[in-house]
Amino acid sequence: MQIYLDHAATTYTDKRVLEVMRPLFEETYGNASSLHGFGRAAEKAVMKAREQTAAAIGAKTEEIYFTSGGTESDNWAIKGIAELAGKGHIITTSVEHHAVLDTCDYLKSRGFDVTFLPVDETGRVSANSVEEAIQPDTILISIMFANNETGVLMPIAEIGKIAREHDILFHTDAVQAVGHVPVDVNETDIDLLSMSAHKFYGPKGVGALYVRQGVTIGRFMHGGAQERSVRAGTLNTPGIVGLGAAAQLAVDTMTENARHERMLANRLTESLLALPETRLNGAGAERLPGHVNVTFSGIEAEALLTFLDLEGIAVSTGSACSSGSLKPSYVLRAMGLSIEDARGSLRMSIGRENNVEQIDIAIQKIKAAVERLQALSPLFAQRRGGKKHV
Amino acid sequence: MQIYLDHAATTYTDKRVLEVMRPLFEETYGNASSLHGFGRAAEKAVMKAREQTAAAIGAKTEEIYFTSGGTESDNWAIKGIAELAGKGHIITTSVEHHAVLDTCDYLKSRGFDVTFLPVDETGRVSANSVEEAIQPDTILISIMFANNETGVLMPIAEIGKIAREHDILFHTDAVQAVGHVPVDVNETDIDLLSMSAHKFYGPKGVGALYVRQGVTIGRFMHGGAQERSVRAGTLNTPGIVGLGAAAQLAVDTMTENARHERMLANRLTESLLALPETRLNGAGAERLPGHVNVTFSGIEAEALLTFLDLEGIAVSTGSACSSGSLKPSYVLRAMGLSIEDARGSLRMSIGRENNVEQIDIAIQKIKAAVERLQALSPLFAQRRGGKKHV
Repeated sequence: MQIYLDHAATTYTDKRVLEVMRPLFEETYGNASSLHGFGRAAEKAVMKAREQTAAAIGAKTEEIYFTSGGTESDNWAIKGIAELAGKGHIITTSVEHHAVLDTCDYLKSRGFDVTFLPVDETGRVSANSVEEAIQPDTILISIMFANNETGVLMPIAEIGKIAREHDILFHTDAVQAVGHVPVDVNETDIDLLSMSAHKFYGPKGVGALYVRQGVTIGRFMHGGAQERSVRAGTLNTPGIVGLGAAAQLAVDTMTENARHERMLANRLTESLLALPETRLNGAGAERLPGHVNVTFSGIEAEALLTFLDLEGIAVSTGSACSSGSLKPSYVLRAMGLSIEDARGSLRMSIGRENNVEQIDIAIQKIKAAVERLQALSPLFAQRRGGKKHV
Repeated sequence: MQIYLDHAATTYTDKRVLEVMRPLFEETYGNASSLHGFGRAAEKAVMKAREQTAAAIGAKTEEIYFTSGGTESDNWAIKGIAELAGKGHIITTSVEHHAVLDTCDYLKSRGFDVTFLPVDETGRVSANSVEEAIQPDTILISIMFANNETGVLMPIAEIGKIAREHDILFHTDAVQAVGHVPVDVNETDIDLLSMSAHKFYGPKGVGALYVRQGVTIGRFMHGGAQERSVRAGTLNTPGIVGLGAAAQLAVDTMTENARHERMLANRLTESLLALPETRLNGAGAERLPGHVNVTFSGIEAEALLTFLDLEGIAVSTGSACSSGSLKPSYVLRAMGLSIEDARGSLRMSIGRENNVEQIDIAIQKIKAAVERLQALSPLFAQRRGGKKHV
């Protein structure tokens, strides 16, 4: 039996989404920029997807720009605003996804000033610290909607309000949030928002950047006149149509999916916390329904992952984008965890197709693997005050 | 009956390619960066695609970086080299695709020096002019393999040799060429090459950049550690697998496809050139097998396109990426055509599924439409020395 508990890394593409995509590969395969019937049919399908995508976040269709995914959206949003400004100060957090962190680091190397705000022990940045970090030359605040490792939700509405009051642009990497929790760009004063289809049962290789009407952003992809001459490149019509269909499906079924995932997440969490010296990361903060990030004392989560993999259970030690780096999670470190505890942390992210039976098997396998690893661990013995010989 | 003669804009996705892609959406859907079985299965599929893609252009697997398409590959190649250099001179031509032209214009606005070389009346840049344009600070030569509007092949091997002799990096936008004519990065001394899957019966939204081993290029997409930490973003596994399968298929069937397309292109060309005051653009130069770009005297090709569209025939007035701009083709203008003649030019690009019957119907419809439009054209009457009242 294979049990996939790594939905934060990626999801499968929903059959219904794939069905909507299929004709765009074989029949309505025209270039959406072409002036003939093949082109118009493709453009019509793109327009519908634009409406679905916009509706999913409370935006207007003309505020949606299709991209190749969350990483491109983040790069474009931040570099696009920075480039037009030429110089200035950017506020972000130390727990952003690498697509934001590395882009900010890059801009720092190009002369921009960047503040990486700390988070508290629950993984949240305080809106107050955002306000205090504002300088006269602050050009952009970029703070994620929900963290990819812990699922912790940031105080986006409060931050958006502060950004608006200070007349500073506000970008949010909402790659983990869209399709999972309600996101409304107007209620939360978001000026730019990144999303990615493959995080909510859409295809990989496609995403969108929302840019509020009236906000001017520099080009990132130069070339053809696609996307109102702001983002060049032949439109990935099957991908775009898949993004639209997946966004609508996710919003339509959000309440029931969230309830289901939270129920399973709670079941998993309660059982794992019964193990000694175990903690839930992000406890005390509002979190995405399916994320469970747990620290098991005295073990290497990479070893745990390998054990579970042999049993057919797919979990993660952090972001898939930094897999294999052997560095302890910078997100958990920023929340105050020791290097050892960060190394001993596992991310399990539940999806809508998981069920109680799968979770119960996972609990059993995880417990057995943790106990086996802890039995070998001098660090765990030490912490438990045991007499195990080191 | 629908007759698609716009393969240079985009192609449908081959059924065999789609079959290979399908499991990556639904079964092997893991994130290729994940360390568990789902991730490894995806990574394995990506590795096969990397081998297929590399083999198609005579490259090594470690020289292939997957991107979101030709536009990203062009942007990355040129900006990536320019950024590391910091300043300097770039040599390109005035007939490049907008993805190269606009990127070079952008770099010009950032202080780089750019030479846009002219082409002769056949649409070719001379290798000699490339050599003469070299300056002590030249950092990059970027010249397309084949032109997207005329199909004219550039003297790539000669240019590559010159670049190598002068120790200057050579990038080629081979988006129209790969899969249609033999491309070998070693025989032609290419250092960087852009390709796009949807131009050879692969999916839209995926492409590759070839970067010769030993060539260092700046990052364009910042973020995760994918693609040896040079191009961030979750791998578009279905797209990548589709690119690989399409590349292999295209190379395996290249000879027969080219023969078939050239036969149909010749049939189309001969019939259309029988019309008065008609010329084949790029005549006298080696061209891609399926491209036919013809100037009909005294008419607006946009009107012709609309006529043909009503008959179910899909053609183009130039690049799909600049469709609707109403500007006459800059490619044809650079070849010495007048504004009127550039406006009267139609691109028909033949694909492997076209047949003689379709071409004969197209010839008949195009002739009828051209004659009807010319009958209404004062310019045509003038040119024919007729007495039609203006």
